[in-house]
Amino acid sequence: MKIIGEKINGTLKLVRKAVEEKDEAFIQDLAKQQADAGAYWLDVNAGTLPEHEPDDLVWLVRTVQEVVDLPLCLDSANVEALKAAVKAVKKTPLINSISGESGRLEGVLPLVKDHDCEVIALAMDGNGIPADVESRLAVVKSLIAETRNAGISDDRIYIDPLVTALATGIQSGQVAFKTMEATRLEFPDVHFTMGLSNISFGLPERKVVNKTFLALAIAAGLDAPILDPLDRDLMEILLTSEMVLGNDNYCLNYIKAFREGKIGNKTDSK
Amino acid sequence: MKIIGEKINGTLKLVRKAVEEKDEAFIQDLAKQQADAGAYWLDVNAGTLPEHEPDDLVWLVRTVQEVVDLPLCLDSANVEALKAAVKAVKKTPLINSISGESGRLEGVLPLVKDHDCEVIALAMDGNGIPADVESRLAVVKSLIAETRNAGISDDRIYIDPLVTALATGIQSGQVAFKTMEATRLEFPDVHFTMGLSNISFGLPERKVVNKTFLALAIAAGLDAPILDPLDRDLMEILLTSEMVLGNDNYCLNYIKAFREGKIGNKTDSK
Repeated sequence: MKIIGEKINGTLKLVRKAVEEKDEAFIQDLAKQQADAGAYWLDVNAGTLPEHEPDDLVWLVRTVQEVVDLPLCLDSANVEALKAAVKAVKKTPLINSISGESGRLEGVLPLVKDHDCEVIALAMDGNGIPADVESRLAVVKSLIAETRNAGISDDRIYIDPLVTALATGIQSGQVAFKTMEATRLEFPDVHFTMGLSNISFGLPERKVVNKTFLALAIAAGLDAPILDPLDRDLMEILLTSEMVLGNDNYCLNYIKAFREGKIGNKTDSK
Repeated sequence: MKIIGEKINGTLKLVRKAVEEKDEAFIQDLAKQQADAGAYWLDVNAGTLPEHEPDDLVWLVRTVQEVVDLPLCLDSANVEALKAAVKAVKKTPLINSISGESGRLEGVLPLVKDHDCEVIALAMDGNGIPADVESRLAVVKSLIAETRNAGISDDRIYIDPLVTALATGIQSGQVAFKTMEATRLEFPDVHFTMGLSNISFGLPERKVVNKTFLALAIAAGLDAPILDPLDRDLMEILLTSEMVLGNDNYCLNYIKAFREGKIGNKTDSK
């Protein structure tokens, strides 16, 4: 399980303020905390206006790399920002993202190819997120045809099957899970990534829904979740799911997390 | 999802005391609480010495039926106790259980047949619990050959794939899940039942493991869990898993449970 730490995201008000004010300490604190909590990548999203975004994203990359050694997930819909940022990274980054939307693939794919990046591929196109599994799989197939054509091996692709709100469609979790299953049958080497929060939009007690969704998504094949590694409930269910699914030899990760106060007994820890 | 409420079990000290002292109020309170919390069946297990068990189990059946209308799950390894109890029930019971162990099938199957019961079938035989999926499936096949031969339709069978402790074998959850998958492929009409607590034996924070196991077992096909319906954490993850898996139209059960204070915000409720 390789976690993409989601906290350095300029769509969040405090992060955006820190980016605008070039508050290194704030960003570096988020970076260190997520690294300590078990993130594998750190997502960096400047979230600023297009004309500033290349400089801001490069600033984020440099600021984060001063304090942590993790690879970064370069998160932008702005090709110029990605182009600038990919030159500033110290480790091979994950690019977030390509999709079937017009222009997205053409702009980003050469970058992925030329810099040997890994890349997140969203199962959507110019018409939005397809409603059913077959249509999402069709988008995935056409994206992987393009990445293969560019010489990018399948194991560098992180498919995001995309999940919509249960409140507006009760099958939305199942569509995401079945899209993963269908994709894995065709492309056994690809990875799967997903954010958790869309599933619970419009429902009460969203954290309960998000953490349950995480467990079930891991069972369905999610291996690179985008989440807040400082969220104790999420990390607890992630570690426990991995153990129950047989991916924690001798229960060592679970027991280590328990000893570090990360499992159960919330009142006894911070 | 049809829950088997597990609390009226004579292996629990207080229940055994209540059975020995014929404390109707204690037993009836457990029955009503579990019914109110959403149990579909109530398990009744006297847990007393073989010579007393038939009378004690009949007493339990009558005592419970005075206050709730639910069908009962008659839980005993003692054929004489089952024979007596099956005559005392008002509704078609679930018999817990048959297995490939010597004598178990021969004694119990005629009861199931003659009284049109449903029955739990354990994936084990005289040699214990088989280590791998293939061997458990072989036991299941031989049990279902017997139930079919007795004219018992597959939809009256509740297969318990049996789960052992993760602490002594990290694949134990996966073996149970894959046994369900393999069984469903051969026998699409059978149901699946399982207790939750064995999985976490020997681990710290067992409740965390049990509830995560419940979510993942539901995803794997568990439709008749044996659990304590008064356990708020278990019921929360059960309801949420059902919703995430698409089995809660318009999220109505989840929202109803939230309004009743059963989801999230533990400090605000009892």
